[in-house]
Amino acid sequence: MSVLCLPSVNYPENIVTNKEMVTFVDKYHKSVSHKKTAIRMINNTTIEKRHVILPFEELIKLDTFGIRSELYERYAKALSLTSAKKALLNSKLKKENITMVIVTSCTGFMMPSLTVHLINELGLNADTIQMPIAQMGCVGGAYAINRATEHCALSPNNNVLIVALETSSLCFHKNASRLQDFVSDSIFGDGAASVVMRADEAYSGIKITATKTFIINDTEEYIKYSMTDNGFKFSLDKDVMYSVKKVAPIMKEFIISKLGAVDKIDFFVSHTGGKRILDEVEEHLFLKPGTLFHSRESLRLFGNTSSVSVIDVLARHFEGRKKGDKGVISAFGPGFTTEIAVGEWVSSA
Amino acid sequence: MSVLCLPSVNYPENIVTNKEMVTFVDKYHKSVSHKKTAIRMINNTTIEKRHVILPFEELIKLDTFGIRSELYERYAKALSLTSAKKALLNSKLKKENITMVIVTSCTGFMMPSLTVHLINELGLNADTIQMPIAQMGCVGGAYAINRATEHCALSPNNNVLIVALETSSLCFHKNASRLQDFVSDSIFGDGAASVVMRADEAYSGIKITATKTFIINDTEEYIKYSMTDNGFKFSLDKDVMYSVKKVAPIMKEFIISKLGAVDKIDFFVSHTGGKRILDEVEEHLFLKPGTLFHSRESLRLFGNTSSVSVIDVLARHFEGRKKGDKGVISAFGPGFTTEIAVGEWVSSA
Repeated sequence: MSVLCLPSVNYPENIVTNKEMVTFVDKYHKSVSHKKTAIRMINNTTIEKRHVILPFEELIKLDTFGIRSELYERYAKALSLTSAKKALLNSKLKKENITMVIVTSCTGFMMPSLTVHLINELGLNADTIQMPIAQMGCVGGAYAINRATEHCALSPNNNVLIVALETSSLCFHKNASRLQDFVSDSIFGDGAASVVMRADEAYSGIKITATKTFIINDTEEYIKYSMTDNGFKFSLDKDVMYSVKKVAPIMKEFIISKLGAVDKIDFFVSHTGGKRILDEVEEHLFLKPGTLFHSRESLRLFGNTSSVSVIDVLARHFEGRKKGDKGVISAFGPGFTTEIAVGEWVSSA
Repeated sequence: MSVLCLPSVNYPENIVTNKEMVTFVDKYHKSVSHKKTAIRMINNTTIEKRHVILPFEELIKLDTFGIRSELYERYAKALSLTSAKKALLNSKLKKENITMVIVTSCTGFMMPSLTVHLINELGLNADTIQMPIAQMGCVGGAYAINRATEHCALSPNNNVLIVALETSSLCFHKNASRLQDFVSDSIFGDGAASVVMRADEAYSGIKITATKTFIINDTEEYIKYSMTDNGFKFSLDKDVMYSVKKVAPIMKEFIISKLGAVDKIDFFVSHTGGKRILDEVEEHLFLKPGTLFHSRESLRLFGNTSSVSVIDVLARHFEGRKKGDKGVISAFGPGFTTEIAVGEWVSSA
C-alpha cells in the first residue's frame, strides 16, 4: 500500500480564451462549410481559457516539426523541473528517498527523456528507475499512479516521483480545418503536474488500495496521434463518444468489488476529457450530481491538459477530505485504455 | 524470482552490406573532407551486413517525416506480431497467462502504441498492463527485462511478454554527412525480438536474481535523438567512447556483490553497441577473451539493432548452457543509462 501526497501543479502564463478560438475560426477558416457547427461546439466546451507556453499569435505561426521539437525541449524541461521540485517539497521526503521517476508526456518527444533531465537537475540517486511514458496519451496521469503503486508494493522504502508534462499547443496546426481539428484545437491545454507516492504511508493523502487497467477491443481508431511532416497531429474519431458507455460496466464492477457500491463513494478524481466525457461518466456510473465538480472546474480553467489533468483534479480534492473517505481515480486514453484506482483517505497526523 | 524463456528473433529480408555503405559514401558524398576517415571507420565496424525493411535504393530516397511514420506503423505492426507470437509459443504459456506487455521501440512513434496492437491481435486479456517504451533507446531490451522482473516479483501468476522492435533504417538521411552520421548509418539495423518472462520459474532459462539501473551524471549529450523536419535524427557524441570506462566500476561492484567475482561468471549477455563498446566492456570488466562471442556474432550479422540486440544475444546464449551457470545481462543507452541484471541458468526438466 502507498499514499499519494499533495500534488503540485503549474501552468504557463499565456492564455487562450475560447472567444479567441471562435475569432480564429472566423478569420482563418471563413469559408469552411462546417464553420457554424465548429463555433457552436467551441462555445459548448464549457472551457473559459487554457494556459499555453506561447502567445496565441505565435502558436498560429508554428510550422515545422524541428521548431516544435526545440520549443518542446525548452519548455518541457523548465515546466517539469519547477513542478517536480514543488511536489518533492510537498512530500516531505529527501531527494535521496526517491527510487523511481515516472514522466508522462505525449505532446512532444525527447531522447534522453525528461526522466534523465529530472534525475540530473534534482540530484536524485543515480540508480533511480526511469519510466518515460509518451504513448499513453491522456490516460498517462492515472497510468503513472497505477505503475507507481506496483513499484511501492515491492518495498516500504520505495517512493515514486510522478511528473506529467504537456505542451498540447505545440500540436496546433493553423490550417487544419476538419471539425475534429477545431474541437481538439479548442480543448487541449498546456501544463505540468507532479505528485509523489510514498510506500511508507507516513503522509495524509490517498492510500491506493487497488488498481486496474483495461482496453476495449478494436477501438484503436478512437484516439490517434500521427506524426505528420509538420508535427504531431491529433485525431479524435467521433465514435470516441461511445467509449465511456462501453467501459462504464467494467469500471462499475471494479468499484463495487473493492468499495461495495458506486453510490457510496466519497470522491471521484476523474480525468477531465471534455464536457461530454464527464457527462457520460456521471450518467453511466450513476454518480450523484456534483461528484465531478473538481474535474469540471479544472476543465473550465485549464481545458483538457491530457496526462496532467487527473493530477490537477487530484490536487483539488485535497481540500475538505476527511480520514476514511473512499473514492476513485480514473482516466481514459488511446487504446482505448482505462486506468482506474480506488483508495481511501488516510491521515498521518 | 522469474525466468526468461527462449526468445524469438526475426529480421526483414532486405540486406545492406558494409561494402554498399562504402559505395554510398563514395558516390553521394564525393567531396566531403572526412570521406577517407569515414570509409576506414565503416570498414572497421566488423559488421558484414544488416537487415532492413526496404531495399537500400529505397532507403536512400526516404524523405519526409510523414512517409517514414507510415512505413514505421506498417512494418512495426507486422514484425512485432510475428515475433511476439513465436515467443509466446516458446514460453508454453497460454495467451490468457500474460499479465503485462512491454514494447520497446525508439525508431518510430505510434499512438496508440504497439502494446495495444499486440493485445488486440494476440487476443491477450483486456486487463493486460501496457508498458510502451520509446525513450530508452538501445538500453530498451535490458530495461524491459528489469521492469518485467519487478512485475513478476509481485505475483507467481504474473508473466510478461517483452517485444523489442526497431526500424533503424527509417532514421537514415541520405544527405547527412557528419562523420558520426556515416558511422551511425553504417552500424544500426532493423529487426524484432521477443521474450516471455515467467514468474513461476517452470521453464529452462535464465532466472533473474537481481537487477540494477543507473545513470552517469551530465552525460545527456552522449546519445541523442532529435526530431528534425525530415524525421528522427540520431546523434552520437564522440565522448560516448569514454562511457564504458565510467560505468564499468559500478557494473563490477554490482556483479561482485551478487555473484562473487567477475572472472567466475559463465556467460555475459551484452548489448552489441559496436566493436569499440564491446572491446571496452571486455577490457574494463576484465572479461576472458571470447566471453562476448555471441554479442560479436550478432553485431557481425545484424549490426546494432538497438533495443532488439540484447534479446538476440540472449537467444544465442540458449545453446550449450547448463544448470547453475551464472551470468550477466546488460545494455547501455541514452542518459547515459545502464541496465544490468544477474541470473542463473535453471532447468525445469
